[in-house]
Amino acid sequence: MTTFGEMGEDALIALFAPRLPSTDAEILGPGDDAAVLSVDGDLVVSTDVLVENRHFRLEWSTGADVGWRAAMQNLADIDAMGAVPTALEVTLCAPSSTPVEFVLGLADGLREACEPHGVGVVGGDLSGASEIVVAVTAMGETHGTEPITRADALAGDVVAVAGALGGAKAGYEQLSRGERVDAEAVDLFLRPQPRIGAGLEAALHGATAMMDLSDGLARDAARLARASGLTIAVDSATVPVHPAAQRTAEALGEPDSALAWALSGGEDHHMLATFPRASVVPEGWHIIGSAVDGPGTLLVDGETPADPGWDHFS
Amino acid sequence: MTTFGEMGEDALIALFAPRLPSTDAEILGPGDDAAVLSVDGDLVVSTDVLVENRHFRLEWSTGADVGWRAAMQNLADIDAMGAVPTALEVTLCAPSSTPVEFVLGLADGLREACEPHGVGVVGGDLSGASEIVVAVTAMGETHGTEPITRADALAGDVVAVAGALGGAKAGYEQLSRGERVDAEAVDLFLRPQPRIGAGLEAALHGATAMMDLSDGLARDAARLARASGLTIAVDSATVPVHPAAQRTAEALGEPDSALAWALSGGEDHHMLATFPRASVVPEGWHIIGSAVDGPGTLLVDGETPADPGWDHFS
Repeated sequence: MTTFGEMGEDALIALFAPRLPSTDAEILGPGDDAAVLSVDGDLVVSTDVLVENRHFRLEWSTGADVGWRAAMQNLADIDAMGAVPTALEVTLCAPSSTPVEFVLGLADGLREACEPHGVGVVGGDLSGASEIVVAVTAMGETHGTEPITRADALAGDVVAVAGALGGAKAGYEQLSRGERVDAEAVDLFLRPQPRIGAGLEAALHGATAMMDLSDGLARDAARLARASGLTIAVDSATVPVHPAAQRTAEALGEPDSALAWALSGGEDHHMLATFPRASVVPEGWHIIGSAVDGPGTLLVDGETPADPGWDHFS
Repeated sequence: MTTFGEMGEDALIALFAPRLPSTDAEILGPGDDAAVLSVDGDLVVSTDVLVENRHFRLEWSTGADVGWRAAMQNLADIDAMGAVPTALEVTLCAPSSTPVEFVLGLADGLREACEPHGVGVVGGDLSGASEIVVAVTAMGETHGTEPITRADALAGDVVAVAGALGGAKAGYEQLSRGERVDAEAVDLFLRPQPRIGAGLEAALHGATAMMDLSDGLARDAARLARASGLTIAVDSATVPVHPAAQRTAEALGEPDSALAWALSGGEDHHMLATFPRASVVPEGWHIIGSAVDGPGTLLVDGETPADPGWDHFS
């Protein structure tokens, strides 16, 4: 098994670079001091970092899983503005003992996540380090719509999510307990499956506020409520629970956990948005509550939820 | 001394964010899923990472020094395309034992480097880690000029640099030997001083190829020669040696080292460019040689230089 250190930077880049996706927006790609991209509309930009043993574990995730997740959580941030992602810059820091297989897998995961959306990796940096760090900056462009922030929900809006929740947390529970009872849930944790494009669709349907669910519905909906200065009231009976979360909870003998995971589990990365009325919510979205006048908090079934949500490995 | 871990992420961000510079290009700043920027022309983007004990040492550098260097080496990459830098995304990973003072210093250094150029920090990410990692993605825009790559030098061009060389290496030599003989050189190592804007100026004067000198003239000029498919012939007598490098070399009793540092020392980040004729080289630039037909290599005084250039701490 060849390692990062044995191969050397130039040889590694020569293997890594051809596996990366490219984008039609690219005017000049990797290899010079900077890349050059065309931007239609305004530039939308976001950064997320994954650190070994904090955001992923090598005994659970392959390089491709880490690449997929690094890409997907950043694409979701761009989509959450109602913008179209176009390109990533990727920084990889890794110990010299890291298998080359991990690094090439990382490129494959980035490509698998990006290619269906026409997103390219246009540059980045590579360094030695004592643990693996993958920092991704995603860029996108607005296409004639205003960016949708978290701050513009209005009292009377309906609140909706673009996908079923709790799957990633159900996978995390299996891995952390060492009991693999449902492969789909494990996969949802290792490779989150937000529907990229749902955010743009919401923007085109008149969404007033939006974000992606990275830290769990309870924590993230409270953030949106605070940013918009109103209360979000969620009816838990209407929250879509992912079937894989339900199956996992039942197999673990704790069927009630499925709803708890859907409410407080993180890393699903589905869109959460508010719309001016139920009739404009796009197909495939689930209405889970409403925005009402109030002190900028979240209520679930009329009460403040106890669980503060996802805290990665803490 | 309060640490990163004691303070917690939210409190730290509340202290950190107000110290960061902002930019007129900002439509939406930090705090949402993504930032939004206006882009005039095409987007130019580059990423550089600094890893503790590989690119900097805490016994040498303050947080402000690290922030300055992280910003400046990225601004130089944008300038090296003949583009105008506008914004940074900054990722900080740090152990929970990191003093808050370091983190706030980092923000100050970023601001000091960026503010004179109207560059803002528009977003980023923060995470725990077992060592400090600062990853910066810089964005800029072309202003009616084509991006200047490394690949378009032509035989017959003159080769020039935008500043005196060897200062950073002279500072590094002092620190690594534990003999502080010249404060200016040490400062040039801790806080590189490329003239941001020299790249745009070169582009407006018709530069054919350009890059910034991060790994030393010997190594970087060879890269430009290879990318352009011609030979670069440098006359060492014309290479501008920084006075602080000369003073350091003399104080250390090895006056000949000054030229060696100017030729092979890294991290000065001054621009290296080729121009179609001597008459168009902007004021303040130094002509050091010419591009000639040949096999894509560098010659110094007619010979291939032995020293392969800067290798950080290796």
